[in-house]
Amino acid sequence: MGGPKSQWLTLSITLALASLSASTAISLYLWKRKSKPTFSNGESSKKIEQLEASLKGALAKCAAERKGRIRAQQALREALRSPNSDKLESSSYPMAPIAVVHSCFSTRNGTPRQPLLVPLAKASLIFDSARIPLPSLEGLEGYSHCWIIYVFHLNTDLDKLWKHPSQSKFKAKVRVPRLNGDRIGVFATRSPHRPCAIGLTVAKVEAIHGHEVLLSGVDLVDGTPVLDIKPYLPYCDSIQGATVPDWVKADNILAVASVNFSEGFSSSLAECWLLVEKKSHYASPDEFQSLIRQVLSWDIRSLSQRSRPHQPQLNTESDDDVEKIVDDFSRVESCREDEAIENGGELVSSLTSDVVYHLILEGLNISYRIDSDSNVLVEKATLASLHSKSR
Amino acid sequence: MGGPKSQWLTLSITLALASLSASTAISLYLWKRKSKPTFSNGESSKKIEQLEASLKGALAKCAAERKGRIRAQQALREALRSPNSDKLESSSYPMAPIAVVHSCFSTRNGTPRQPLLVPLAKASLIFDSARIPLPSLEGLEGYSHCWIIYVFHLNTDLDKLWKHPSQSKFKAKVRVPRLNGDRIGVFATRSPHRPCAIGLTVAKVEAIHGHEVLLSGVDLVDGTPVLDIKPYLPYCDSIQGATVPDWVKADNILAVASVNFSEGFSSSLAECWLLVEKKSHYASPDEFQSLIRQVLSWDIRSLSQRSRPHQPQLNTESDDDVEKIVDDFSRVESCREDEAIENGGELVSSLTSDVVYHLILEGLNISYRIDSDSNVLVEKATLASLHSKSR
Repeated sequence: MGGPKSQWLTLSITLALASLSASTAISLYLWKRKSKPTFSNGESSKKIEQLEASLKGALAKCAAERKGRIRAQQALREALRSPNSDKLESSSYPMAPIAVVHSCFSTRNGTPRQPLLVPLAKASLIFDSARIPLPSLEGLEGYSHCWIIYVFHLNTDLDKLWKHPSQSKFKAKVRVPRLNGDRIGVFATRSPHRPCAIGLTVAKVEAIHGHEVLLSGVDLVDGTPVLDIKPYLPYCDSIQGATVPDWVKADNILAVASVNFSEGFSSSLAECWLLVEKKSHYASPDEFQSLIRQVLSWDIRSLSQRSRPHQPQLNTESDDDVEKIVDDFSRVESCREDEAIENGGELVSSLTSDVVYHLILEGLNISYRIDSDSNVLVEKATLASLHSKSR
Repeated sequence: MGGPKSQWLTLSITLALASLSASTAISLYLWKRKSKPTFSNGESSKKIEQLEASLKGALAKCAAERKGRIRAQQALREALRSPNSDKLESSSYPMAPIAVVHSCFSTRNGTPRQPLLVPLAKASLIFDSARIPLPSLEGLEGYSHCWIIYVFHLNTDLDKLWKHPSQSKFKAKVRVPRLNGDRIGVFATRSPHRPCAIGLTVAKVEAIHGHEVLLSGVDLVDGTPVLDIKPYLPYCDSIQGATVPDWVKADNILAVASVNFSEGFSSSLAECWLLVEKKSHYASPDEFQSLIRQVLSWDIRSLSQRSRPHQPQLNTESDDDVEKIVDDFSRVESCREDEAIENGGELVSSLTSDVVYHLILEGLNISYRIDSDSNVLVEKATLASLHSKSR
């Protein structure tokens, strides 16, 4: 009993010293503007006891709350000052991006299934000038290619990283098209849905302007955070006689029969070109049209789209709820479900018997059809919706 | 006059509300130690007014404290649940290792300058069984090689990561042996001292036993945390016609003239072998001796050691204080200074005219000499000191 009591004493005394004057002032003030009630002696003393008791209780509670508030606030300050203390330090390494990708591929849908497949696929790495001194890029221009280590930032389950990096959920096995949808261990694939959402790709080094590194042949989505780049060293990185399982050899990169443009295409492109050309990687509508041709020369549709092209894509589950057929070696099909949401146009169009597909390049929405003989007809270009652009 | 007056009123009221409780508390306390008082009507009613006011104030204060406490605790919970919120979320991604490397290379000194250079260099990746389900490794055995994305955990400045990931210091340019110590941008090298301390290497996949993946041809140091592994895909990763700057072509991997073993070596190895064989990657002292031969077939000494082999290495600065000559494409020489400390034997020996070098393999300290014609004589094997082993 002594402990709490003396605590309570200290509190009351401290507060009292700090405030007697004020309290006197107030009681004076209250007294001035009130008529006095009358009590019998007994009543009043009883009333007083009750009041005093409840007051004592209130004060004790108050002191406790105050203590709790202060303790919580101190802990909070501590937690915010060193975000990686305790929990994180032991379990994970904080990796801060050094650059961000500005790519012609506004969404994952249409992003090539492997690097260097689309030579005209341009991107620039914009390095964080506050963090990366210019001299650190000196000499990179001497290499033809470089590795890019990046974050799969569009994984819809990425947010789990923040909570429990060491417990971020992932599928142990993923279904892969090359196995006709059979499942295989995630570490036997390059699926983006891995415990550490780190991607590895290679690109051609075109030029370096200040903090901007121009690349081509990329398979990177716009906005991708980059953790590191390294020079490509043939004598280390190009392994003679490296072998893969037979199922990987089965070519999954389907070339289409032909790519043609509708009569109205050029004019539709010309219309919206003015709105994007300033920030475009491409010098002219013609060069951009060549990009479209290169991208659509490969059937970029997901397995599900190919197998049932005339059924609407109504699957809107998140990464957690659905076991997706991810492309075994790119992030493209892994985003199929998202695209169905994100790229609503397709959802609507595909309700018609003849499916219109959409591809977002440089913020432009390119609509095309593909017939049963896999001849592609590019219909028109329009400004992509902000939503699609934002992806 | 009205302004100041009302201000004064507000002030007194505020102070009073916050403190009446306390002042009353005092009186309450005094009262408790007194025999029950008797009040005149006036006194008692006044007392009651005061008490009621105090109670009101106390309850208000209590409610305020409670609100504050709850708000602080909610914020704290938030901060602890997502340590990377606010500050970090924008600036870095927490990456939790999926495995740790158990390698024959106990220290960086002697670790090959590039992968696959020492075929007998064995390591096992021990996956975190709490986090990585066995099926996630299914199918990996079908590939001859895999990429390993890891953390340069021996960088002495790594701790900075925890404090300010986005401000972790690094040298914009590093001195490279191939340029005879000239400097070049860090992104034109594979120096471990980069803004994100992420390493990329490739190894041969030998076998998979449960959560253990056996590798060979590694250039990884024991204890390296692994963030991700990916299958090596020749059609993506092996780029025909990739080019590098001329200075990179200059071969920096010096083969030695010969590697011989002293008469006493075998017995010295036999003595300590019993103590390490249980956790060794090697079946017999003979196989282990072959590893030593392969490792020492390349001059693993740093440029500084080669150029002034008969001067003691007294440089003990940390990564921050000194601009080191790092090996341009491995982490080996970057640790030269550390080795001088860590591997004290050399420090002492090198004070004599004839330098004895040390190499820590599988926790054994291998001492050797190398003459001016670069003939290596391996002298003896002893148990490495705990300190060296711990590295």
